[in-house]
Amino acid sequence: MSSNNVYDKEHPRHLIPELCRLFYDLGWMTGSGGALSIKEGNEIYVTPSGVQKERVQPDDLFVTNLNGDELDGPPKEKKLRRSQCARLMMTAYQKRDPGAVFHTHSPSATFISILYPGNEFRITHQQMIRGVGGRYDEELVVPIIQNAHDETKTIAKMEKALDDYPNTNAVIVRRHGIYVWGESWQKVKLRCESYDYLFETAIKMKQFGLDPAEVPKGEEVAPS
Amino acid sequence: MSSNNVYDKEHPRHLIPELCRLFYDLGWMTGSGGALSIKEGNEIYVTPSGVQKERVQPDDLFVTNLNGDELDGPPKEKKLRRSQCARLMMTAYQKRDPGAVFHTHSPSATFISILYPGNEFRITHQQMIRGVGGRYDEELVVPIIQNAHDETKTIAKMEKALDDYPNTNAVIVRRHGIYVWGESWQKVKLRCESYDYLFETAIKMKQFGLDPAEVPKGEEVAPS
Amino acid sequence: MSSNNVYDKEHPRHLIPELCRLFYDLGWMTGSGGALSIKEGNEIYVTPSGVQKERVQPDDLFVTNLNGDELDGPPKEKKLRRSQCARLMMTAYQKRDPGAVFHTHSPSATFISILYPGNEFRITHQQMIRGVGGRYDEELVVPIIQNAHDETKTIAKMEKALDDYPNTNAVIVRRHGIYVWGESWQKVKLRCESYDYLFETAIKMKQFGLDPAEVPKGEEVAPS
Amino acid sequence: MSSNNVYDKEHPRHLIPELCRLFYDLGWMTGSGGALSIKEGNEIYVTPSGVQKERVQPDDLFVTNLNGDELDGPPKEKKLRRSQCARLMMTAYQKRDPGAVFHTHSPSATFISILYPGNEFRITHQQMIRGVGGRYDEELVVPIIQNAHDETKTIAKMEKALDDYPNTNAVIVRRHGIYVWGESWQKVKLRCESYDYLFETAIKMKQFGLDPAEVPKGEEVAPS
Repeated sequence: MSSNNVYDKEHPRHLIPELCRLFYDLGWMTGSGGALSIKEGNEIYVTPSGVQKERVQPDDLFVTNLNGDELDGPPKEKKLRRSQCARLMMTAYQKRDPGAVFHTHSPSATFISILYPGNEFRITHQQMIRGVGGRYDEELVVPIIQNAHDETKTIAKMEKALDDYPNTNAVIVRRHGIYVWGESWQKVKLRCESYDYLFETAIKMKQFGLDPAEVPKGEEVAPS
Repeated sequence: MSSNNVYDKEHPRHLIPELCRLFYDLGWMTGSGGALSIKEGNEIYVTPSGVQKERVQPDDLFVTNLNGDELDGPPKEKKLRRSQCARLMMTAYQKRDPGAVFHTHSPSATFISILYPGNEFRITHQQMIRGVGGRYDEELVVPIIQNAHDETKTIAKMEKALDDYPNTNAVIVRRHGIYVWGESWQKVKLRCESYDYLFETAIKMKQFGLDPAEVPKGEEVAPS
Repeated sequence: MSSNNVYDKEHPRHLIPELCRLFYDLGWMTGSGGALSIKEGNEIYVTPSGVQKERVQPDDLFVTNLNGDELDGPPKEKKLRRSQCARLMMTAYQKRDPGAVFHTHSPSATFISILYPGNEFRITHQQMIRGVGGRYDEELVVPIIQNAHDETKTIAKMEKALDDYPNTNAVIVRRHGIYVWGESWQKVKLRCESYDYLFETAIKMKQFGLDPAEVPKGEEVAPS
Repeated sequence: MSSNNVYDKEHPRHLIPELCRLFYDLGWMTGSGGALSIKEGNEIYVTPSGVQKERVQPDDLFVTNLNGDELDGPPKEKKLRRSQCARLMMTAYQKRDPGAVFHTHSPSATFISILYPGNEFRITHQQMIRGVGGRYDEELVVPIIQNAHDETKTIAKMEKALDDYPNTNAVIVRRHGIYVWGESWQKVKLRCESYDYLFETAIKMKQFGLDPAEVPKGEEVAPS
């Protein structure tokens, strides 16, 4: 699943551009939105900022250590900057030690944060909850933090959410997008897809006046 | 339409990965959701569990006989498991003797099961009913069974639905997805598409306060 | 734009399969729905019935004269039937002499026919009206006919609609789909796209309680 | 980013057809809608009118100077006309001196102009506002002008909007589409995507009775 060989197509330098193209097609990285990172050994590969994500090239990536210090970067003539969300990603790397952290501007994640004005997204009795590591009949809770123009404020909120929700593998940033992590890029990609499925279901339920967090009649609650 | 030759591109080892990619693009197999199976002679080919379905390879498939006994499987180093839904598929194979059974997490099938709280989906006077084997002016009925964290409970409900609805070629599993079968993979694929079209139409009708099962004024009912 | 040479990629034997793939991707020909026909000289090429439209091959097509008599067809071992909608297409060929007639199961055309219970779709003050041959500020009217299980009944209604609406280049069949024609396949394709755009706009307007046929305040009506 | 060499794939003769295909897939240029232009030195390359935009070829483009005088065009036997929107594009070139101007029939831009009956689209507290050059917490304002069958009337309104909104990089034309410009084609493409994301968010907010221009409770307003 991982490799030190940059010629290997499973190397982050190839996987990240490929996933950027896929996520662009899904509408998660349009308008240069979002950022992807994958850890390879002690190195973290991150996308650049402000560019067309679906056109990112292998040598456009930044490489940092776990402290976020830059080890390598794109050729200077490309004039690229590291993704501004990289610091929020580092929070997840430092507190959870994942193999990958993806940040997308998924429209359904962004819209869910508008529909749920509180600090949590909640849904239950959905098979797709298994796709993010839970049970069909449990209540899935994903923390929502406030966005801010000043990124420093968001980092503190991200840290707090990770402390307050020790089992979560995702944080929604209100009116902005979502951060998702896991032990491998495959797991994180599957989780991103599953969260989106759940968010879309919840939005449609609310359109029909239904509460996604309500246990359906005649159904049981997960044993605690 | 079928072949014992694994080099034939119509062999299940090639068809299943191709259909997985298509169904992923349609949003029916994201988050590792769903499972596809095709019968070839006395062998049933089934997708593995928990992986990115759109990246399934020909040698990732499991092969069983009609009793569900494993005849062949992927190389052990791949550490793959058979799809957890394989047992529900076997129910359809044993009771209906189809050439293929597809299980998808189609978002519209899942959402229909939330909008129809009873045990049946009903719709009438839609040309697309012909796509699942009916008449334009008949009332199409598809059974909906409850989902459960414990798969054993779902199997018993699946068996009962197949007994109670001897003419149905599909079963919806509430808040989970749909099972569809037929004499050939082509038929099953066309039915999956037609059901989705009907589910989407029904969801939109309900958004406008219209009842999909109501006979439109001035229209006739199918002769019985 | 046309050719007697079947090796020419603009020949109907190549164009029709290509357009079928595109229209399948647009959701207009899923579940085997719809049929495409293009005239080449005195020959009309038509898609077969009941098959996966996106997999239609050049030699799967039927060829008829303007009376609908079969001149050529697919190899017998393929066991294909001519599209059941071919007779309705012939009505358009005989009354309007177009270069192509497309019949799609566009979900928005089908849904529009449910939202407009009368015999006409109406919309005005939309730039996209130019895409079907009208003016921005005119009222576009498209006739809607009833569907029937018995195709013969539909043909009579199609003929009447063509007589009653001498300027229309499309007929919507309620709860079924749409027929569109024009002097060339390019024109018909552009019209199909423009109608879909208008139908989608009208559906969304009605979701917001707005009337697509109402002249916006402060706007003028087209000179008559 | 630019080149005088027509063999360079970054030359407008190659970029424009590529972007037309992408925008067609996004639903922004169906039905022949929209027009793209890119400046190269003192030459402006523009798409032709009335054709399938996703099939535009490199030699189908028109070339004008900054006054709109035609310097070069497609082979006469192709019988192509310059895009009717070219004159509105010239207004943007003359008043803003951008490197590219894109006009799309984005369905969400068109629909936003129906939902906002006044002369402005307004939204605030959305991360995607950064994608069009603003701050998360500012109020983004995009002018909306009336469409007219007679193009001359629209030009005067376009000029006025550019004067009245000196900082805008986009103008919405009611019930028609949007014009977006910027220093490079990359910037304009990113802006088109970001505007669409914001329009889609605003449409969904309005579906839920929420006001996109309202500052969310507990959030600050951008410092002025």
